[in-house]
Amino acid sequence: MNSEEQIRLTQTVKKGGCAAKLPAGELKEILTGMNIFRPKELIVGTETMDDACLWDLKDGRYLIQTLDFFTPIVDDPFDFGAIAAANAVSDVYAMGGQPATALTILAFPGSLLPLSVIRPLMDGALSILSKAGIALAGGHTIDDETLKLGFSVSGFVDKNKAWTNAGAKAGDVLILTKPLGTGTITAALKKGEAKESWIKEAIKSMTTLNNITRELEEIDVHSATDITGFGLAGHATQMALASRLHFTVDLNKLEFLEGAKECLESGFLTRAHTTNASYTQNKIEWNISINQKDYWPEWKQKIIFDPQTSGGLLLAIPETQAQKALEIIKNSGFVKAGIIGKVSRSETRTAVKFEAK
Amino acid sequence: MNSEEQIRLTQTVKKGGCAAKLPAGELKEILTGMNIFRPKELIVGTETMDDACLWDLKDGRYLIQTLDFFTPIVDDPFDFGAIAAANAVSDVYAMGGQPATALTILAFPGSLLPLSVIRPLMDGALSILSKAGIALAGGHTIDDETLKLGFSVSGFVDKNKAWTNAGAKAGDVLILTKPLGTGTITAALKKGEAKESWIKEAIKSMTTLNNITRELEEIDVHSATDITGFGLAGHATQMALASRLHFTVDLNKLEFLEGAKECLESGFLTRAHTTNASYTQNKIEWNISINQKDYWPEWKQKIIFDPQTSGGLLLAIPETQAQKALEIIKNSGFVKAGIIGKVSRSETRTAVKFEAK
Repeated sequence: MNSEEQIRLTQTVKKGGCAAKLPAGELKEILTGMNIFRPKELIVGTETMDDACLWDLKDGRYLIQTLDFFTPIVDDPFDFGAIAAANAVSDVYAMGGQPATALTILAFPGSLLPLSVIRPLMDGALSILSKAGIALAGGHTIDDETLKLGFSVSGFVDKNKAWTNAGAKAGDVLILTKPLGTGTITAALKKGEAKESWIKEAIKSMTTLNNITRELEEIDVHSATDITGFGLAGHATQMALASRLHFTVDLNKLEFLEGAKECLESGFLTRAHTTNASYTQNKIEWNISINQKDYWPEWKQKIIFDPQTSGGLLLAIPETQAQKALEIIKNSGFVKAGIIGKVSRSETRTAVKFEAK
Repeated sequence: MNSEEQIRLTQTVKKGGCAAKLPAGELKEILTGMNIFRPKELIVGTETMDDACLWDLKDGRYLIQTLDFFTPIVDDPFDFGAIAAANAVSDVYAMGGQPATALTILAFPGSLLPLSVIRPLMDGALSILSKAGIALAGGHTIDDETLKLGFSVSGFVDKNKAWTNAGAKAGDVLILTKPLGTGTITAALKKGEAKESWIKEAIKSMTTLNNITRELEEIDVHSATDITGFGLAGHATQMALASRLHFTVDLNKLEFLEGAKECLESGFLTRAHTTNASYTQNKIEWNISINQKDYWPEWKQKIIFDPQTSGGLLLAIPETQAQKALEIIKNSGFVKAGIIGKVSRSETRTAVKFEAK
C-alpha cells in the first residue's frame, strides 16, 4: 500500500456529496425577482427547478445542459471520481437525452493532498464518461481548501422525446429506479461506522449510470427527474409542483440500500436531512395508519429526506405501460426499481402525500 | 451603510481570482496519457489548451463550451459577480462566437457570510450576462469554506468563422485588447494597499466584455485566445505552441493598468506569478538590450507572468489588416488595445521571445 492509498478523502471535508447543498427554500427566496434575460430558444430554464436546461437548436434537437459538483463522500479517489461523473451525467438522462460532452470542475487542496491524487480521480471519472460515450472536453481547476469535483455536462434530445419534470399526467404511476439511502450510509462511512458491504453496494448504486432513455423509447414517459440532494421528498415535490398535480407515495414500496435502515436508526444524518424537511414542510403530508406506526417510526421516515448522490430516476408513466416499463428498467440492471406511487389531480394544498396503510 | 456593505469579500479567502489556479505544468504531467473518449464531433478538445471546446452540431455551427470559477478578488459582491461573469463569457468570444447560456457555479460560505450576499453577487453577474445576451439557465450551489463563483457558458459560432489558438500564421501581428496588471493590483487590494482609482480602473477593465467578434467580422482573425490565469507569458506560449510558430512580443508595447507598475514594484505578487514563470521557463526567452536594462528591471518583467482575471484577447491578424483591426477594437471601447508583437516561423526552441530594444 502506498501513501496515496492511505488517504481517506472523506476525512478532508466536513460535509460530503449532495448533502453540502445550500438550503433550497432560503435560496429561492433570495433569488426571487431577479432580472433574468429569457430568449425564446430557452425551452426549460430555472423556473420549474428541473434537472437541466433545454435550448432549442432549431434543427429538431434540444441542447441539454447541466452541472453538478461536490465534496468527497467516499474515501477512494477513483470511486469518488466515478460517482461525481455518474451524478453529473444523470441530469441529461433525466431530460430523456444522451450526453455528449463534459467539462471538469475541480477544486483541489494542494496543501492537503499530493497533486498526484488528481490522476485516480480523473481516471475514475473517465471510466464512467467513456461508458456513457461522453468526451471530456475541458474544464477548470483551482487550488482550494477542500476537494470538490464535478462536471458541466451537455447532451442532446429530439424535441419530441424530451422529458421534463412538468409533464406528469393524472393517472400516471411513479417508478423509482434506485434504492434510497446514500446520504445516511455515507454519513456513517465518514464516521468509520459503515460496513464494507454497505459501502460497496452504495458505491455500486452511485456509479450506475441512469442510462435508460433509449431502452424506454417505446414507453410514453410523461415526466422525469433524478433524485439527488433534495431527497425523494424534495424532488418529488418539485416534479408535482411543476406538473401542477398531486403525488401519492407508498412508503412501503420504497427500497432501501443495504445498511440504510441501520444507519438511519443509529442517527447518521446530514444537515440536508434537516434542510430538506424544512424545504418541503408545507408541501408534503403524511398518512401513516395506526397499525403502521410501529413499522414507520420517526427515524425511518427520514429516508424521504435523505440526500441522494447519483440517485435514481423518478418517472411518471401511464398505468397501462407501467409493468412493461418496470420490466425494461429491471432488465437494464436496476433490480431494485419499483412502482412507488401514483399521480392524481390536486385535492389538497400539498404536493406529495407519503402514506403507509 | 448596512452590515452587508461592510463585508470585504477579499478578506474571506487566501488567494483570489485566476491566481488560485493549480500549477499548469504539474497538472499536465499528471494527466498525460489519460484515456479520453474522442468522438469526431469534438473539433477542439483539451489537446491545444484552447479557451473552450468546439463541438460540430452538423448544422453549420459549432457549439462552444467553457467554464471558469474563482474566489473573490474584489470586495464588493456586485462587482465580483460581474467580474466572474465577464471572465467566464470571455472564452466564448475568444473562439469567435456569441454566447447563449450560462449555468452558475457557486460555492458559498454560509457560516461566514449571510446568504443574502448571494443576491448582489447574482445581480452583478446578471448585469453582465444580460448585456451579453446570455440566458442564465441553471447551475449548482454548495455550502463551502470559501466563496467561489463562476459560470459554465455555452455559445455558437459558424463553422467557417471559429477562432482557435492554433491558427496563427507567420507574418501575423499580435494585438492585445486590454492592459495588464489585474493580478498585482488585486493582490495589493487584498492588503488594503491599492488606491481607489487603481481598483476602479481594474474593475472597469475586468467587467468589460471581450465582445468584439461581430465587429471584427470583416477582419481575417487567424487565431485568438484570452489572457487569464496563466498570464500573457502562459497564454501566448500556449497559442504559439498550438500554432507551431514563434511569437515575438515587444515589452515596450505592453500597456499597464493604472497602478500596476507601483504594485509590482512594491512586491504585491501572487503564487501564480511564480508558477506561471516556472510553467513557461523553457518556452520563453528574454532579449532586453543593454540600454533598456534600467527601464526593465526584474520587478517590471513580472508583468508577463501577472495572472489576469477577465483579461484581454490576444489576436493574430494579417499585418495588412492590423491598423484597421486596431481601429475597430479601439472604437469598441478598448482604448488601451495595441499591437504588441509578431508571429514568425520557429527559429529557436522557445515559443515566445519578450524583447525590449
